[in-house]
Amino acid sequence: MKEVRILEIKQSVFADNDRQADLLRADLRKKGVFLLNLMSSPGSGKTTTLMRTIEALKDDFKIGVMEADIDSDVDARTISESGAKVIQLHTGGMCHLDAEMTKQGLEGLETGDVDLVVLENVGNLVCPAEFDTGASKNAMILSVPEGHDKPLKYPLMFSICDVVLVNKIDVLPYFDFDMDKCTEYIHMRNPRAKIIPICARTGEGMEEWADWLREEVKNWKNHC
Amino acid sequence: MKEVRILEIKQSVFADNDRQADLLRADLRKKGVFLLNLMSSPGSGKTTTLMRTIEALKDDFKIGVMEADIDSDVDARTISESGAKVIQLHTGGMCHLDAEMTKQGLEGLETGDVDLVVLENVGNLVCPAEFDTGASKNAMILSVPEGHDKPLKYPLMFSICDVVLVNKIDVLPYFDFDMDKCTEYIHMRNPRAKIIPICARTGEGMEEWADWLREEVKNWKNHC
Repeated sequence: MKEVRILEIKQSVFADNDRQADLLRADLRKKGVFLLNLMSSPGSGKTTTLMRTIEALKDDFKIGVMEADIDSDVDARTISESGAKVIQLHTGGMCHLDAEMTKQGLEGLETGDVDLVVLENVGNLVCPAEFDTGASKNAMILSVPEGHDKPLKYPLMFSICDVVLVNKIDVLPYFDFDMDKCTEYIHMRNPRAKIIPICARTGEGMEEWADWLREEVKNWKNHC
Repeated sequence: MKEVRILEIKQSVFADNDRQADLLRADLRKKGVFLLNLMSSPGSGKTTTLMRTIEALKDDFKIGVMEADIDSDVDARTISESGAKVIQLHTGGMCHLDAEMTKQGLEGLETGDVDLVVLENVGNLVCPAEFDTGASKNAMILSVPEGHDKPLKYPLMFSICDVVLVNKIDVLPYFDFDMDKCTEYIHMRNPRAKIIPICARTGEGMEEWADWLREEVKNWKNHC
């Protein structure tokens, strides 16, 4: 695997994260850069989903990826094989990224020619939901083995996501996962959330997801 | 299902959590109460494992359970069916419990006649690892679908755990999970960590886990 650049992120000094996030979002819109904030529990399949997403969209857009992790660069090394521009962000123990930290990452990535940047946030359903990163859209992955009751337990995460990818549907026969209940609970938290069942390993559902994301990026760039 | 008591936990005012944790641990030792801090990602099977654990140990000990959650009381309602004494702790959005918050929970639970208290911490591999709760021992559950690389990504969590339960081994054939690598990575973080493969759903491995916990509780009470 290739070596990847690692950026040690500094903790933010800004008290008003919402303001910083709005400023960053406005700046990205001006530059025509779409930022997707991708969140999930540890082990839900963010990196595999991302590999498939890059594969599906690499002819449409120049793609950049920021891999946020407490430690290690295993995901960034995997992603670097995809041809996307990658940077590893080390959060120094921090459990989330805020807008200023995201900005540091974007500067490190150098987004000059990039259309779509995906931020793979720290694996955590609690803290990342509390901080607006300045992203154009928020996405999360809920995997089948985690159970359909997660929207009941992590309400904020589901309420802020524009799209929920329900991953690992290939193992549905082996788990007590009720897709109807899952949909009901997600919509209880956020009636407008789009829900797309996928299997990143086999590719099932990835076309619908890629279509959704392609449209969003195009709309964003059309309104720069 | 039964109604359960819900306690809204207040945020701590103590700057020195380590000191508060040591005080709480000393107090619990004096009272002969063993506190197990059980941590994991969302959806790794904490509640099912806990149900099986209570079943295995209820003739040996009087058991109490504190269910910490951002919101909801679904887990506490499930656990209340087991016959254990249960209290639901709402963290008000907080992503972890510290020693003072744990103490509030123990007071709410009323541990007078209890030998073993299990704290089901918030589902999160990052923040709970940073705060000593005052527990006698730390345990975590890593489930097979999450992947064997998690000790590389969440080093602190694995380094502070006395025991790691590798859950959902019944689905090993459907996932690329390498138990040898998992063991190697866990021991890289913590050479003394005990690793027990289990399947809480079928009961596999639960005897070894119950034996380990029984011994720990007995030793704790013998040295009061």
